[in-house]
Amino acid sequence: MAGNSFGNLFRITTFGESHGKAIGVIIDGCPPHIAIDEEFIQSELDKRKPGQSKITTQRKESDIAQILSGVFEGKSTGTPIAILIPNEDQRSKDYSHISDKYRPSHADYTYQQKYGIRDYRGGGRSSARETAARVAAGAIAKLFLKTKGIEIFSHVSAVGHLESPNLDVSDLSHLLEVRESNIVRCADPATASEMISLIDQVRKAGDTIGGKISTVVRGLPVGLGEPVFDKLHADLGKAMLSINAVHGFEYGSGFTGSEMRGSEHNDIFVKDNGEVRTRTNFSGGIQGGISNGMDIIFRTAFKPVATIMRDQDTLNEAGDLTTISGKGRHDPCVVSRAVIIVEAMTALVLTDHYLRLKAYADEK
Amino acid sequence: MAGNSFGNLFRITTFGESHGKAIGVIIDGCPPHIAIDEEFIQSELDKRKPGQSKITTQRKESDIAQILSGVFEGKSTGTPIAILIPNEDQRSKDYSHISDKYRPSHADYTYQQKYGIRDYRGGGRSSARETAARVAAGAIAKLFLKTKGIEIFSHVSAVGHLESPNLDVSDLSHLLEVRESNIVRCADPATASEMISLIDQVRKAGDTIGGKISTVVRGLPVGLGEPVFDKLHADLGKAMLSINAVHGFEYGSGFTGSEMRGSEHNDIFVKDNGEVRTRTNFSGGIQGGISNGMDIIFRTAFKPVATIMRDQDTLNEAGDLTTISGKGRHDPCVVSRAVIIVEAMTALVLTDHYLRLKAYADEK
Amino acid sequence: MAGNSFGNLFRITTFGESHGKAIGVIIDGCPPHIAIDEEFIQSELDKRKPGQSKITTQRKESDIAQILSGVFEGKSTGTPIAILIPNEDQRSKDYSHISDKYRPSHADYTYQQKYGIRDYRGGGRSSARETAARVAAGAIAKLFLKTKGIEIFSHVSAVGHLESPNLDVSDLSHLLEVRESNIVRCADPATASEMISLIDQVRKAGDTIGGKISTVVRGLPVGLGEPVFDKLHADLGKAMLSINAVHGFEYGSGFTGSEMRGSEHNDIFVKDNGEVRTRTNFSGGIQGGISNGMDIIFRTAFKPVATIMRDQDTLNEAGDLTTISGKGRHDPCVVSRAVIIVEAMTALVLTDHYLRLKAYADEK
Amino acid sequence: MAGNSFGNLFRITTFGESHGKAIGVIIDGCPPHIAIDEEFIQSELDKRKPGQSKITTQRKESDIAQILSGVFEGKSTGTPIAILIPNEDQRSKDYSHISDKYRPSHADYTYQQKYGIRDYRGGGRSSARETAARVAAGAIAKLFLKTKGIEIFSHVSAVGHLESPNLDVSDLSHLLEVRESNIVRCADPATASEMISLIDQVRKAGDTIGGKISTVVRGLPVGLGEPVFDKLHADLGKAMLSINAVHGFEYGSGFTGSEMRGSEHNDIFVKDNGEVRTRTNFSGGIQGGISNGMDIIFRTAFKPVATIMRDQDTLNEAGDLTTISGKGRHDPCVVSRAVIIVEAMTALVLTDHYLRLKAYADEK
Repeated sequence: MAGNSFGNLFRITTFGESHGKAIGVIIDGCPPHIAIDEEFIQSELDKRKPGQSKITTQRKESDIAQILSGVFEGKSTGTPIAILIPNEDQRSKDYSHISDKYRPSHADYTYQQKYGIRDYRGGGRSSARETAARVAAGAIAKLFLKTKGIEIFSHVSAVGHLESPNLDVSDLSHLLEVRESNIVRCADPATASEMISLIDQVRKAGDTIGGKISTVVRGLPVGLGEPVFDKLHADLGKAMLSINAVHGFEYGSGFTGSEMRGSEHNDIFVKDNGEVRTRTNFSGGIQGGISNGMDIIFRTAFKPVATIMRDQDTLNEAGDLTTISGKGRHDPCVVSRAVIIVEAMTALVLTDHYLRLKAYADEK
Repeated sequence: MAGNSFGNLFRITTFGESHGKAIGVIIDGCPPHIAIDEEFIQSELDKRKPGQSKITTQRKESDIAQILSGVFEGKSTGTPIAILIPNEDQRSKDYSHISDKYRPSHADYTYQQKYGIRDYRGGGRSSARETAARVAAGAIAKLFLKTKGIEIFSHVSAVGHLESPNLDVSDLSHLLEVRESNIVRCADPATASEMISLIDQVRKAGDTIGGKISTVVRGLPVGLGEPVFDKLHADLGKAMLSINAVHGFEYGSGFTGSEMRGSEHNDIFVKDNGEVRTRTNFSGGIQGGISNGMDIIFRTAFKPVATIMRDQDTLNEAGDLTTISGKGRHDPCVVSRAVIIVEAMTALVLTDHYLRLKAYADEK
Repeated sequence: MAGNSFGNLFRITTFGESHGKAIGVIIDGCPPHIAIDEEFIQSELDKRKPGQSKITTQRKESDIAQILSGVFEGKSTGTPIAILIPNEDQRSKDYSHISDKYRPSHADYTYQQKYGIRDYRGGGRSSARETAARVAAGAIAKLFLKTKGIEIFSHVSAVGHLESPNLDVSDLSHLLEVRESNIVRCADPATASEMISLIDQVRKAGDTIGGKISTVVRGLPVGLGEPVFDKLHADLGKAMLSINAVHGFEYGSGFTGSEMRGSEHNDIFVKDNGEVRTRTNFSGGIQGGISNGMDIIFRTAFKPVATIMRDQDTLNEAGDLTTISGKGRHDPCVVSRAVIIVEAMTALVLTDHYLRLKAYADEK
Repeated sequence: MAGNSFGNLFRITTFGESHGKAIGVIIDGCPPHIAIDEEFIQSELDKRKPGQSKITTQRKESDIAQILSGVFEGKSTGTPIAILIPNEDQRSKDYSHISDKYRPSHADYTYQQKYGIRDYRGGGRSSARETAARVAAGAIAKLFLKTKGIEIFSHVSAVGHLESPNLDVSDLSHLLEVRESNIVRCADPATASEMISLIDQVRKAGDTIGGKISTVVRGLPVGLGEPVFDKLHADLGKAMLSINAVHGFEYGSGFTGSEMRGSEHNDIFVKDNGEVRTRTNFSGGIQGGISNGMDIIFRTAFKPVATIMRDQDTLNEAGDLTTISGKGRHDPCVVSRAVIIVEAMTALVLTDHYLRLKAYADEK
């Protein structure tokens, strides 16, 4: 109820502040007998961690995941899996200059007002560092989904006004390789180069920039999602909107769809090799809130990072005008690291709904 | 878990199919001593009901709400409030021609696959008729919020490519009056006229069209929303995405924000008559998932209605190609009626988070 | 959160006051394709309803259940099943003499203090009439469990100091017949006669008396129940303790078990026709919170009904001493009607855990 | 949903196996500004830990709690409090002889059947070691309740047939001191001596014995508990029944109350120094599921520990008859250590309901 848990049957609870002893997560409801590949979990964390490249923050954190429970002889046992990620490189003194100042467009002011107390170092609980715990849990979910043949692919489809052209998504493994071949994680190499230049230029100007991430899910069976409030896209939307800096979510035709006519938007059912498919996929693979077997398609919009390397006017806790100067080590653009968070949250939603489907199915 | 409940401390559970005996809702967690104005509840339902004007479906349903419990001598008692809305005008035979056909971009196929059985008449549970129950519950939530001085205003800001210019939102009551003065529920009269012509033209062509609804919330205290997964905008996003035909949600700067620089996007704190405010409001009144006292601003995108008055190819349950013809009485554009659903869902989210804030507050 | 829902995957929400328009229940999460036998639901309600015999209240209520949704052509569709039970025979004036008096050992005082407002007629929401909604929902759960070969049997095993001898429970259907052959619902005919005499004598004295109900569940597969907080017996215990007037719950060896040695209490595993069984069943069919395939056995204790036909001292809302006189039509002993409520709550818990088991199972 | 969380607004999630790296707990929903006294938390853990005296297991574990998050400068911040308790003294080889045998009246068989895999060392997740995490969380809850003047007192009221006489409970602090002055934790010194002798004798015989714990809560305001399913005693009952080895729960008059007449059982309201009180307290401080301001009184029954130092027949995983010999270091009677677990679970339930009351209150 205090909002640090996500999911129902596959439920995670995260804890930890940016500059405390550790962050971590408990995953409750992982089915037994899933092979828990610790190297995979670590490789996922490595994709999110700071200090990866010149276009991410230079802060160094090794983000080593320790599994404390729920795994026996390499397999999940059905009991809670706790994962601990100790904090390192805590230059807490970097933050002493802002201990009583409200950073613009950060959560300092709202936390102080809501709780009357906050760990101001590094954003405390509002720090994007919390998402490392989600990535670790998402890796477990991905390992579960892999046993069902379900693939998730996200990439950076826009940085600022720079948009990737539409991709041929017929081979998601190949796209994943292309994505990982560049530091911005865009699966179109030409656009990737432009994006990297743009971010570098923004960084040198002491500024930051927003972007968008596009996601495709393949191999989902028909039937995931509940019809009324827990529609599959409603839960995906909440998952994405819960990620730091996300300001928008759309699936299928999205905002553009609202400008279309029904006669062009309707997805006509066809038979394709004995399978029911739709000719177009404006529905984004979800009809009436329930997966229809087509690719799930959605897009997530991130605002520019709030911490800039420039002086800004602001207020302090006493309510007086003051100036805050840009210090510390921050990302000029968050999307290249957020790709893996988007995938993790997607995996969590899908695993939860997969288990929900199992609970009610098979009676027919 | 089966997805027919929404909210935590202020929790609603809806039931009922389009062509069953009744639909309805139980509201669990309404605080005691709220004056339950039945005329207000009915007036809200009247704004959603079909048959209001030439640009909505001509289906007639009186949608009369009956309160069955939880109210004593005109006030809530703290016990569950059950509201029943009997179904009328059930021309179930209108649907016999589609009993075994999957309407394109409807939920027929996914329901049949998920459950192996469905009430095909009028979409059964996937019918937008279910939202009448949400509007009744939302009316109760609005009555609660009114006691706290919290106002919610939504209007149709786009139909197809037609967009309303930015409004002066200083007087929400006035805007509400303007909105209610035209049948499309756009608060800009000139745009409203154009929208009505456009919808009428689309309707005559046997087609449908999408649109967008913009929402402003005023008077919210600082502190609503939980920091990690249950961010205020994440819960608002899920609420909106759970409404039939919604394909996108954005708050504050939204998708456009993802094209901006941090230096232009950051909302600078200022003191205004002793109050902490921000100079701009790209944050949409929410920072770190928590309300900051500024207006909450968001936008919801609706795809075009799937039922069109034209013949379409499709498949039947046997998997054979067939033709489905447009019949029945349907909306050419759903947004003018959906305005009140958006407000209702907003009210439900805000009331829930208001009570959550109370649970944890005051210890400082 | 306001406490009117029970269960997770098979979740019910009840509403309604004793003297309002109706009471009822929404069942969310009933799997599709369950044959919904309305006559069976009604027969269950008839076993709970008042006015059945000389040892129950003489209040007459027909308790006719109306299914409003979730059933199509006689089968559950997977969508919420709403059941309405209109109130009748509301002699609300019977209660005018107590509108501002706190009846001893009733909920009048606590409701008034908690909510500051209450429907004083007939106990409002604290009335045992609310359990009719549970019985209707429990009947649906029983129909589900029947498809799995799971049987539930409860009977009155004690009234006051009168205890039934241990029964031969090899044939639960036969015991059910015996139970229904007498008005007190004890499956031992000789004890039943004594119980009826005792209750009659208590009733004539204007007094009331408590009792106990014993339950046996047979046919449950191994594996129901979650290991830590949601142990099967913990959920059964909560279910029983949520029934009006219940003051105690024990399973397996229960309170007596706490007086035993481990060497006599341990249930030794044996092989019986290829099945794993235990020689004794002090565990009550549950080990580590999880069903082990043996009979589930538990016992529920009911205090005497608080409303007696005698004058009692009490306080009124102003805090002044006053006298309350016994009026109205009340039960001298509640257990004969509560048998069916105990069975209903048992069915709800088992169905919920059955679905939970399905969600996580089959991965091995 | 997998059952490792407890509570709603004050919600704990535990993790960890007996012989894994660590056990621990996340507490989500602790209000901010609570002084977190780490010494107090440790002193609570010390009361539960093994190896305290000759009548507990001789296994040595220091059970040192490490707070990882949610506390800043000695105070709770409103964010999740994670507590880690590393495992030590893991003589896992002690368990090799039972890796494929089902210990009688343990959870070995049900876990193996439910999950198809289990960490057999020390009972894995079914080990009472899990309760250390509850005690740590309960200590936080006690610190919260202390700020409200709410006291919880439990003691061993029975070991086998040996029952403590009724205590004068007017001074709970004094009783606590008496309780802590003897190793069995009974607040009646004479009975305590007898209990210790009895347990010692049982231990020497290689056997175990059950017992009962009685609890009194004082200082609770009127209004805690929700009226229908989440009655205060129903949630307390579930909490107690979720503790390992508990087979029964009763509150107020309990099982004895079911043998009484209404005329003797009813608690008559009286005015006492301006306060509303009841003359007797058969209701155990709870009426209609809601606290009435009187002492909360309940009793919990524990079966004898299943591990005995004798040879027992049993089955192995292959289903063959085998013998299991008593080895390892185990408790002859669990109640003296369980006293603190009972108090912890009580504190968790009360804190949760306290916050729930706050959410809905104050509107009148």
